[in-house]
Amino acid sequence: MTTVGILGGGQLARMLALSGAPLGLRFLVMDTEADACAGQFAPLLVGDYRDEKALAEFASKVDVTTFDFENVPAESAQWLSERVPVFPNPRALAIAQDRLAEKTLFRELGIPVPDFAAVATREELDAALARVGVPCILKTRRLGYDGKGQFRIRALADADAAWDALGAQADKVGLIVEAFVPFQRELSVVAVRGRDGEFRSWPLTENWHVDGVLSASLAPAQADDALAEAAIAHARKLAEKIDYVGVFALELFCKDGVLLANEMAPRVHNSGHWTIEGSETSQFQNHLRAVLGLPLGDTRMLGHACMLNWIGAMPDAAAVLGEAGGHWHDYGKLPRAGRKVGHATLRADSREELAASLQRVGVALQRQPQVEPVIERLR
Amino acid sequence: MTTVGILGGGQLARMLALSGAPLGLRFLVMDTEADACAGQFAPLLVGDYRDEKALAEFASKVDVTTFDFENVPAESAQWLSERVPVFPNPRALAIAQDRLAEKTLFRELGIPVPDFAAVATREELDAALARVGVPCILKTRRLGYDGKGQFRIRALADADAAWDALGAQADKVGLIVEAFVPFQRELSVVAVRGRDGEFRSWPLTENWHVDGVLSASLAPAQADDALAEAAIAHARKLAEKIDYVGVFALELFCKDGVLLANEMAPRVHNSGHWTIEGSETSQFQNHLRAVLGLPLGDTRMLGHACMLNWIGAMPDAAAVLGEAGGHWHDYGKLPRAGRKVGHATLRADSREELAASLQRVGVALQRQPQVEPVIERLR
Ligand SMILES: Nc1ncnc2c1ncn2[C@@H]1O[C@H](COP(=O)(O)OP(=O)(O)OP(=O)(O)O)[C@@H](O)[C@H]1O
Ligand SMILES: Nc1ncnc2c1ncn2[C@@H]1O[C@H](COP(=O)(O)OP(=O)(O)OP(=O)(O)O)[C@@H](O)[C@H]1O
Repeated sequence: MTTVGILGGGQLARMLALSGAPLGLRFLVMDTEADACAGQFAPLLVGDYRDEKALAEFASKVDVTTFDFENVPAESAQWLSERVPVFPNPRALAIAQDRLAEKTLFRELGIPVPDFAAVATREELDAALARVGVPCILKTRRLGYDGKGQFRIRALADADAAWDALGAQADKVGLIVEAFVPFQRELSVVAVRGRDGEFRSWPLTENWHVDGVLSASLAPAQADDALAEAAIAHARKLAEKIDYVGVFALELFCKDGVLLANEMAPRVHNSGHWTIEGSETSQFQNHLRAVLGLPLGDTRMLGHACMLNWIGAMPDAAAVLGEAGGHWHDYGKLPRAGRKVGHATLRADSREELAASLQRVGVALQRQPQVEPVIERLR
Repeated sequence: MTTVGILGGGQLARMLALSGAPLGLRFLVMDTEADACAGQFAPLLVGDYRDEKALAEFASKVDVTTFDFENVPAESAQWLSERVPVFPNPRALAIAQDRLAEKTLFRELGIPVPDFAAVATREELDAALARVGVPCILKTRRLGYDGKGQFRIRALADADAAWDALGAQADKVGLIVEAFVPFQRELSVVAVRGRDGEFRSWPLTENWHVDGVLSASLAPAQADDALAEAAIAHARKLAEKIDYVGVFALELFCKDGVLLANEMAPRVHNSGHWTIEGSETSQFQNHLRAVLGLPLGDTRMLGHACMLNWIGAMPDAAAVLGEAGGHWHDYGKLPRAGRKVGHATLRADSREELAASLQRVGVALQRQPQVEPVIERLR
């Protein structure tokens, strides 16, 4: 009997547990919140990730550890890795936690990135703006998620406002300025690498964000083979460089046919949720297979899939459940503004059918703005 | 928040809970055993199904009740149904629990059955043998499963031995004699009926048994449309007659192109496990959708699928996980002779690929006898 420990008990841990059950696995989830939604289907240990006593209890009960959450303190991951196998390895985690380290590595590997510059002081912000130019974005280096910890700088005159907003965090989490990319599309590669180095990628996915939060994903992305291959090659190079084990996502901007890497997520990723029904093997099961050293599952797609995120509160399920390829995912969370509470995946054999299904769901749920860009792309 | 109560905490309850989690459901499973395998992923109430105190606690905690196990005492189901909605309804359960009631109903509905006769005494056994003829099978009317409670009578001279084996159970569970059917194939219809009467069936499935226990299932069955339609029409007629709600299976023998009904299982069924990966909607999720009055999901198949049962102990997973369409299901049970501990499903786009996959797995696991009849059928 193998017990997989997961640091973080949100919807990713929940879906990992649900998809790992058929492998005969047991789980132990650790979270700071007693009502973490993974706890509805797996034993939950409530504790702070910096509390060595809690970590020791966790370590004593699991055979291997992984993450649902990349902002686990790097030292905690390190501490655990001295006691129990941890995948992905703490070094990979540390790189992915830091936008500066990440972008520096991308550049080293020949993966194009938007121009960037580190910022530690108000003066360095001016220097960075001079180098990178405007428009640009000031971001915290660490602990950002869902577009939080970002300030958009449209003109040099915004520098003071940007510093007012984020300057106080310069010491604690660091800051970085990134050139603003007027991209046409956002894409992601969701891929998996096994303990033995085997690498597999799901088809390239296109993503739409609203207010910095993922709103919809479409797979396969409507992109030519060369673009998809280049994106996947970037992901592979990155994974091999940091000896990554498990599923990860590489988020990319596409501008005039050129790919620029935005960031990597060292875990199963929201833009890969469609793999549950849309692929022979889901990202969740393949993450566990990778972490456990089992053979990786086939990542090919069955037809076309679109994932719609539900933010804040769940809509009525009936419209999605009434679609032939409609699948519902309610994370069992209480509603709260801005919270990811669930998603739906629509699957169809053809682009046309998927567009028609999205159209019906958009109308029924009065969410046309969410589905329209996807329908547009499918035409 | 809706809590679904499940009487019986085996692998069927476990797979119900895993597939119902995405609907935002909570579960409470009741079983007589503290280590019932569904308890690894859902709260478990340990108690006897006849214990009114335990049943009352169960009823107070759930919004709706269903079964993983058809031999829950009919009175317990009735008692519960006076307190909380129960699907399928206790009358349907009572019929399915009794081979005599079931076969009588089949006959009433014009669904052909093997000749049968009720037996209460040693004299009635002789009368039944005279009427039904030999070869035939003496079976307990109630509480049989996996071929248990059966005695094969090849000649009239076997009557004493049959009575020695099962006569003592005549009073308690009743006995029935059924004509032995020298069938060429065993088939099952796995179907679902909603609260509103909507009926959907998965494609007809062919099954192979070893020692009375399911060994392999193939879907779709290699059968002509007329046969499949006839089988599904029988299932539909039956479900409508007893106002069945949820998933059920109708097991049929096929002899010289003629269908004879063997029995119905008033629950998700082992011959429908392939629907998890092989169909747009699994039998588990559709059972829950039906029980909750939600729209039923699409039951169409994606390609061809074969399920292999693992009895007694789990084989090594690697051979199956290494197949492109290979999916593993370990129920988290301790090994024990004759126990259903898991299954694998192999999925492929074509018959040829499925046969090749079965061939590889059969060789790797030294289970050629299990896969050969299926490969034979696919040729
Ligand atoms: N340099 C940029 N140019 C243009 N848009 C950007 C840039 N950086 C971020 N964005 C927009 O903001 C979104 C969120 O940014 P980013 O991925 O850096 O933040 P995050 O907080 O880590 O988000 P997530 O949790 O979704 O990964 C991006 O998906 C993109 O839409
Ligand atoms: N009348 C019959 N003629 C020929 N074979 C039979 C007959 N009845 C049963 N069998 C064989 O025995 C197997 C098990 O019988 P049956 O389905 O009646 O028992 P069960 O204990 O209810 O099984 P299960 O739990 O698998 O449904 C059948 O699948 C079939 O292979």
